[in-house]
Order: sequence, then structure tokens, then C-alpha cells
Amino acid sequence: MSKPGNPILVEVIRGELVESRHAGAIAVADAQGRLVLSLGDVERPIYPRSAVKALQAMPLVESGAADAFRLSAEELAVACASHSGDSIHVEAVRRLLGKAELDESHLACGAHWPVSEAAMAELLRARKRPQAIHNNCSGKHAGMLATAVHLGLSPRGYERPDHPVQRAIAQTLSDMCETELDWAHVGIDGCSVPTFALPLAALARGFARLGSREGLSVSRADAARRLVEACFAAPVLVAGEERFDTIVLRGLALSAFVKGGAEGVHCASLPELGLGIAVKIDDGTKRGDERALAEVLAVLLPKARKVLADQLKGEMHNWRGRKVGRIAAGAALEEALATLATPRHRAERAAR
Amino acid sequence: MSKPGNPILVEVIRGELVESRHAGAIAVADAQGRLVLSLGDVERPIYPRSAVKALQAMPLVESGAADAFRLSAEELAVACASHSGDSIHVEAVRRLLGKAELDESHLACGAHWPVSEAAMAELLRARKRPQAIHNNCSGKHAGMLATAVHLGLSPRGYERPDHPVQRAIAQTLSDMCETELDWAHVGIDGCSVPTFALPLAALARGFARLGSREGLSVSRADAARRLVEACFAAPVLVAGEERFDTIVLRGLALSAFVKGGAEGVHCASLPELGLGIAVKIDDGTKRGDERALAEVLAVLLPKARKVLADQLKGEMHNWRGRKVGRIAAGAALEEALATLATPRHRAERAAR
Repeated sequence: MSKPGNPILVEVIRGELVESRHAGAIAVADAQGRLVLSLGDVERPIYPRSAVKALQAMPLVESGAADAFRLSAEELAVACASHSGDSIHVEAVRRLLGKAELDESHLACGAHWPVSEAAMAELLRARKRPQAIHNNCSGKHAGMLATAVHLGLSPRGYERPDHPVQRAIAQTLSDMCETELDWAHVGIDGCSVPTFALPLAALARGFARLGSREGLSVSRADAARRLVEACFAAPVLVAGEERFDTIVLRGLALSAFVKGGAEGVHCASLPELGLGIAVKIDDGTKRGDERALAEVLAVLLPKARKVLADQLKGEMHNWRGRKVGRIAAGAALEEALATLATPRHRAERAAR
Repeated sequence: MSKPGNPILVEVIRGELVESRHAGAIAVADAQGRLVLSLGDVERPIYPRSAVKALQAMPLVESGAADAFRLSAEELAVACASHSGDSIHVEAVRRLLGKAELDESHLACGAHWPVSEAAMAELLRARKRPQAIHNNCSGKHAGMLATAVHLGLSPRGYERPDHPVQRAIAQTLSDMCETELDWAHVGIDGCSVPTFALPLAALARGFARLGSREGLSVSRADAARRLVEACFAAPVLVAGEERFDTIVLRGLALSAFVKGGAEGVHCASLPELGLGIAVKIDDGTKRGDERALAEVLAVLLPKARKVLADQLKGEMHNWRGRKVGRIAAGAALEEALATLATPRHRAERAAR
């Protein structure tokens, strides 16, 4: 890597000294792939991880499985989720599996402790271990399984790159982002399904299309609309209480669909503006991608300043509740956002 | 910050693609402050956080408090610890407090869930909340309290920068690292005591002196020896089972004293080589500092290759136990270590 590194997007300040810093890249694009903002290297392929779960769920709707199994908004939302493992999530995943006449024994995602402290405490008190259903990806897996069943395929091996369901997901990703997938560098995600490396610019374009549905076939546009609407209708299913994505989906419903992934990735779709956003923090830190995305949202959607007031303040408190520092936008991000905040890009968009 | 950024020390690889990267800086110095290795910016002040707990514990011994209260090796070790909050740690802290005729109500560190999953589970099953005694810093606080009591000072406000105990700690840090402290940028640590920003070069020198005791007064040399020996004698008290520092202290006893801190800091003292090491990962990520330090230790101490075999392999597994990637040294670190690995620096040291 002889290129200069990505700029500092986010700083962690203790007292008045920058203690830690998060470099990264951000792409904001429209459905034609025109970059409204490009900060850092937006052409290097990155693994989007769970940030593309809504795109991975599209074959569930497009195949007709969602209709055949009469899936509710909650069940569609949990198929797009990195959920907290609370009972509301676990029950939705069980319902989804049940409608496809499957159960949690079919899940290939592996087990981890629920993200939710309350759910973890409940398991511990009952002297139980976490199961695959508690995995934050269990809804996505249930959706993949339901798709396989509806298509008359064996659910066995549904998580493998060569299974028709994963092939359909790969095709959807490639189509939505208008980019060839790099099959030579398929990664395996934490939950065992493939993760394809894509440039941030392509991801931003894909998310612009997810919201605007420009250039999509009728069936794919319908799938995009229904999944995004389901997430707006049931925001707590997509993440969980007090989590960034649920706060945004709830507070900015219809205006901003957002989804985070592991290792510092966050994507967003702004349907009213016809824009998509993709963020990757080089070091993979969540506090970096959430803060960077909050800054971009605050510039593009004035209402976000209120919904994300705490995130934009970024105060850090210690174990006694004393303020010890703050998380702040780095200078490079501030400068880039200043250009984005001018009326120019809106005028440009209006003139198209 | 117009300087070029720090080099990539550690890479996180999924499949065959670098998914995330950790930039940072490393200083390896001797007791005279000569830099054996300098990678990245080793002159920029950083907060050492918990990495300097052994230095913060020196007044506990030097004041005579440790002798007056007949502190055991376990109690001295826990005073230098970022402990897991297991019963072995909680009991040692209670004993330390009891010897000074204090109890856990005096602790000003605030409460957090124990690092240890087993200890957390036990609290949850008993429907209890964590207390200050479970804070990973409670041993350090108990040591500060015991120092105050022994000196006839009020324990009230022992955590504040202007309390004589904190003044003594600041003086010790400054003396050991042969550097002026920047009182204009005192940070407040997670546990409410001051944290002073120091350059990595100065920290590495301080850790060289902690192990070699070169140039220290008799009383300070004695304090350094007793604290380091206590940590070697009771390694599980300094961190906890399966944690990096305990693994190193146990496996490399007498050869490598190590202590990590929050936000990507790790320091080490190699008494037999007369060297100190200080690492800071820019983004504050633990997987970065542990991996970088493991690499340096493996070059300087051949035995470390075996003790840290798993850490140096760096395999990452997903929730089903499948290998999905690995954590590896970045090219800049590899190159720097190659120079360190030549017999040159040993020859230079021998010729002094």
C-alpha cells in the first residue's frame, strides 16, 4: 500500500489532547454513481459485512418467498437486522423460521452471547448458554433459509458461496451496486456466509438505488421498497433499543435507512435525496463509523441534528459519570462536510 | 497535525484481503534513554492510562506503607493490576483495604461489570450490580488509599490531582521517565485519577529503569524491584486468566514485565536486557497493541515465541470456529523488527 493513508475522520479527545484517532473513507453517491462526496480511498474494495443485510434480504422478497410465507414487517425487518438478541428479536426469527416449516436447528450462523445486556443476564440467570437464535445474524439466516425452501432447494449448505441462495444474493449485490464481484477474494463472515469486497463508491451507489429505486426492475424495486419500509415500520427489530441504527430508523423514518456492519462499516440510504452513503473506518472501530455517519446525516438532513444530538455531542463519561472527553469530527471530515453543506450540490441535483 | 501519519503496525486479514489496519508507534529504549527502536512518532505525548500502574504504585512501597501494612506479593500485584474482577482479585483488594483499616466504600474508581465473564455471570445470577471493588482499577485505588493513610493524610479526595498521593505519583512518573509532566494537559482516567501525557520515548526509558533500576535511589530501586517481583510471583493478580499480561508475566517471569492500558497502550520492561518498550496504537484498539508488543517481545526474547505462539499466529475464528482470517504484523513493523533482530544492537550494548 504505497498510497497515502486515508484522512482522520474522527478524533477521541481526553481533556484537551487528542488521545486516539480514526482514519477512514466516505462515499456519498447518487443512483447514477455520481459522487457527491468522496473522502479518502473510495475505490479500494472493502468487506461491507452486515451493512448490506438489506441487499442480502432482497431475494427473500423477489423470489416470492416473503409473500408465500406471508411475512410481516417485523419478520422482514429482522431478516435485515444485526439484532440485540432480545426476546422481541428471538421471537420474530422463530416465527420466520416456523412459517418456512423450519426451526433454529437449521441456522448455520453459530452462537454468541446476545448484544443486549438484559438478554444475556436472562440466559445467565437461567444457567443457559447462547444459541444460534441469539446470534445477531439469525434473522438474516432465517430469511436465507426461507428463500431456499420457497425455491424448492435443500436448506442444507445454504450458507456456502455455491448455494443458489448465496448466488442469488451475490447477483443482487452486483446488480444493485453496478459492479463486478471479486470472487477470488470472497471473505467468510463471522456468521459463515460469504462477504464480497466492494468499493465504497459502489456501495454508496447501491444504497442510493435501494432508496430511490432508480433503474431497478419492477420486482426488485418492489423488494427494495418493502424491505426499507419494513425497517422503518419496525426499527427496533433491525438493531435494538439504544442502538444507533434503531435510533436513526425511528427518528428519521422515511428519510434515512441506515445499517452498520462489523469492522467499521456503515451504509445509509436517503430516499428523499436520492443519495447513498458508505463509510469504512480503517481500524474497524464502531465509535468511528457511527460518529462519521452521524456527521454526514446532520449535514444532509437537518432533522438529524436533533435525532442524533447525543451522538453529535459525543461526550465521554467515566465510571463515575464525570465528563472526561469527547468524540469529535476530524478536520478532514469537517472540511469535506463544509463543501457538502453548500447549496451547490442541491442546485446541481435540481438542474439534472 | 501536518506530520505524516504513523506507520501501519498491525493488519487484520480476512480471506486474503486486508480488512482493517492499525497504525501506531513503538519506542524501545535503554535506561539512558537511547532508542534501540523508534517507529512512528515517539515524541508526541500520549496518555499511558493503566500501562503505568506499576509506576503509580511505587509511592505505596517507597512511602513505607507496604511494609507498615505487611502487604503480600498478591496485594502488591493487585495494586499494579487491571484485574478481571474475579474473586481472587476482589479478595486481594479487600485484604489490602482492610490492612489500612479502610473498606470498599472509600474507593473512588466507580463501578463497571467485571472483565471476567464468570464473575459477571455470578453477579447476574445473584441479581447484583457490580460495585467499585469489581472495577479493574480497584487494586490501584486501594494502594493509593493505603499510601494516604500511612502518610497520615485524609483519604478523602485521594484521586484528585492536587492530593499529596497523586502529587507523589506524578513526581515518581516524572523522575522515572526523566521528563517534565505537562500539567496543562492532565487527563482524567476512566477511574477518575489523573493521567499524564508522556512521549513513548520517555515511557520506554521509564520502563527500562523500572527493570534495570539504573540510576534510581536505593528506596526507589527497592520499590521497583518489589513491585515487579510481586507481579512475576502473582501474575494472575495483575490481569486474569487467559489475558495477555498474565500469560506473559507467567510465561516470561523475570524476563518481561508487561502492562497494558486503555486506548491501545502497552508498556514492557525487560530487566535482563535493560530495555523498556512503549507501544501506542493510534486508534486505541487492544488487538493492535497486544499484537505489536508480542512481535517485539518475540524478537528480543527467543522464549517469547513459544509463550506467545497463539498470539503470534493470530488466527481469527468465526462463531462456528471456522478460520476466517488472521491478525498479522504490518510491513513497517516487520522491517523495523528485522533491524532489531540483527546482532548489531546486542553488540552495541555489549560494547558500552
